Amino acid sequence: MVKVPGPFKTPPSITLDPKPLADVPDTPLTPESGDARAPRSASRRSEIPVFEVMQITDEVARRRHAGHDVVSLCAGEPSARPAPGTLQPAGYTGPLGTTPLREAIAGHYRDWYGVEVDPGRVAVTTGSSGAFQLVFLTAFDPGDRVALVSPGYPAYRNILTALGVHVVEIATGPETRYQPTPQLLDEAVREHGDLAGLIVASPANPTGTMLARSELQSLVEWCSAKGARFISDEIYHGITFIDAGPDSRGVSAVELDSDAIVINSFSKYWGMTGWRLGWALLPEDMVAPFEALASNFALSPPAPAQELAMRAFAPETYAERDSVVQGFAKARALILDAEQSLNWGAAAPSDGAFYYYSELGPQLERFGDSSSYARALLEGADVAVVPGGDFDPVAGHRAVRLSYAAGEAAVAEALDRIIRFQG
Amino acid sequence: MVKVPGPFKTPPSITLDPKPLADVPDTPLTPESGDARAPRSASRRSEIPVFEVMQITDEVARRRHAGHDVVSLCAGEPSARPAPGTLQPAGYTGPLGTTPLREAIAGHYRDWYGVEVDPGRVAVTTGSSGAFQLVFLTAFDPGDRVALVSPGYPAYRNILTALGVHVVEIATGPETRYQPTPQLLDEAVREHGDLAGLIVASPANPTGTMLARSELQSLVEWCSAKGARFISDEIYHGITFIDAGPDSRGVSAVELDSDAIVINSFSKYWGMTGWRLGWALLPEDMVAPFEALASNFALSPPAPAQELAMRAFAPETYAERDSVVQGFAKARALILDAEQSLNWGAAAPSDGAFYYYSELGPQLERFGDSSSYARALLEGADVAVVPGGDFDPVAGHRAVRLSYAAGEAAVAEALDRIIRFQG
Repeated sequence: MVKVPGPFKTPPSITLDPKPLADVPDTPLTPESGDARAPRSASRRSEIPVFEVMQITDEVARRRHAGHDVVSLCAGEPSARPAPGTLQPAGYTGPLGTTPLREAIAGHYRDWYGVEVDPGRVAVTTGSSGAFQLVFLTAFDPGDRVALVSPGYPAYRNILTALGVHVVEIATGPETRYQPTPQLLDEAVREHGDLAGLIVASPANPTGTMLARSELQSLVEWCSAKGARFISDEIYHGITFIDAGPDSRGVSAVELDSDAIVINSFSKYWGMTGWRLGWALLPEDMVAPFEALASNFALSPPAPAQELAMRAFAPETYAERDSVVQGFAKARALILDAEQSLNWGAAAPSDGAFYYYSELGPQLERFGDSSSYARALLEGADVAVVPGGDFDPVAGHRAVRLSYAAGEAAVAEALDRIIRFQG
Repeated sequence: MVKVPGPFKTPPSITLDPKPLADVPDTPLTPESGDARAPRSASRRSEIPVFEVMQITDEVARRRHAGHDVVSLCAGEPSARPAPGTLQPAGYTGPLGTTPLREAIAGHYRDWYGVEVDPGRVAVTTGSSGAFQLVFLTAFDPGDRVALVSPGYPAYRNILTALGVHVVEIATGPETRYQPTPQLLDEAVREHGDLAGLIVASPANPTGTMLARSELQSLVEWCSAKGARFISDEIYHGITFIDAGPDSRGVSAVELDSDAIVINSFSKYWGMTGWRLGWALLPEDMVAPFEALASNFALSPPAPAQELAMRAFAPETYAERDSVVQGFAKARALILDAEQSLNWGAAAPSDGAFYYYSELGPQLERFGDSSSYARALLEGADVAVVPGGDFDPVAGHRAVRLSYAAGEAAVAEALDRIIRFQG
């Protein structure tokens, strides 16, 4: 007699149509009220069913691990091994990445930040790009307002806009070291209404500036009090040039609030850009909705990159990467030493992230704007720099970003050429 | 004297807020009018600026190719080579993939389908998953209606829903071999209003059924006449078990209409699932908006996978993959031979795609639904199959999908166990 147990899961309530737009209030929270708020729930658009095949695949793995000889006719992937020398096989992993990698990432938080992170809240993603799009989808619905600073990483603004989220740009400058403050957030709320979230990066792109622990703390607390999601872009952690004692690699928001959303990547400190691998630390309530989205939008992060990334947390790898950062420091020093000869305008303090962001100052009189300057420099001296318009639609036409990730020799040569080109 | 040329590009008109939702008509096209329509434009949400850094990187590559000694301080990626044995470096590629791979993919269309495809219209993506999400974002705005069939691949429905697109599910069965027809589309328009797009898969997941050239043609023409985007999922091309002469690998929609959107992948025929690499063929008007979205949402597809995929189009690779498909054919034959002993209900004709989708028929009386059946089979006989609910929220509780990609031995063992389990 066959025992009939329950189904794999309660059949999901399938939503074929998106929730009616009329139900999404244009002002989700009452503006200007200052009370502490209930935590936000995950977005309504994340209420899609998880791809069950991926869950069954997990269960097959668990049974095999427990010693069962399971035959799986589930996966839509060939198990045949390609002939040697042609194509290497690598199967799907779970939608949130392999368990060993998720555990290794949790270990990184113990090592670097002294904080315990549940590996179940680590989601491995296709680069930090994969994390940003899935976090934005999980956290925000169309019409929500999310604040970020300009100058800033343009993809925040552009992904949010394409997903129907209202971007509240907070213009920053040297007076706040190009970072947000609770006062600037209060002003933004007064002008635009309550915020559903805030994105912060320290070190930041394009400016390289960092937040001190107390500054990060004040922003985390502001968001917690207002019921806004705090999203901390930490992809440049470890690439820092400040002397801040135990905080010198960067302070992780998860040290301050376990409900902060942290996004990181193997691209920058570990130099694995082209492998497209990153991760997110998610608040408990966001894990299941994030997994539902990930299992449909991405199936799984790249498997060979996940295997390779297991080596990232070995002591010799940290040592090797720290020596690369020391190389960036030398390249950075060359730029700072050349500031007078460059004859540009004010520059952001380059605390980290291998970026130097500067106004062009006197050069603007000759070239008009930074885009024309960059074009002329490339054509006239074969030096490529990025005009600021990508990062700041309002004031970026006066600034350029130099990346000194190319190293000391490239930076020295570029500086020579720039100074000669400007004449 | 320095020559001052123009900027890199016309400064984009930056849209910080999404277009007001009130401007998106709920019924974008007049229902029931039968005239030919002007082609749809790309979505309004794709009107975000391309990430200019990625474009400058392209220009740097062009100048270097032309013999210039360019120093680039553009890229936010370390150029230092990691120590051997630790982490392998691989940089970003262009957002649409490397030029050699885009050209090689165009060559594949010449070889398999006898059709010329402009490599500039090939977009390499992070798996077909990356192609689906970016195509949907580029082609459709919130409130648009897009048709697809059930049973079908659940991620179509779930990605569209999460992006605010209305999914029009067309229930299909054996009478149309689980594929849409112009008549079914006309009915869907009468019931729901005009369609912005149609997604078709041949071979399909989960049923494996294929469309004949004339059937595909009639659907392409229906969409062309109605101004609806035609999206053809061709990821199972080459994994086919029908004798259709020159069309036996599958007919590509691009053979019939150069404005069709084709999505394909290195995951299935080439078995590279875990590498996450696919591509889209885009109509001319969609290339720039797609690139803008790709450069912000993904930066670039995985670089090592792109390098590996260059081997995919070698004659010996095709030969090796065809022999893998012959192995699938043997596994398929085992299932078809066992149909009587399985004592299930009606099955879809498994033309391709290594799937067998069947009603459970008499087994439902004992197990209630397919999810309970699958759970009991896994716990009682250690055989994993996928219940149909993923693929068909309405009728899938009566069906299961078997993947015979696991090969002949696994399928033989599974069939033995299933038949013994059912008693």
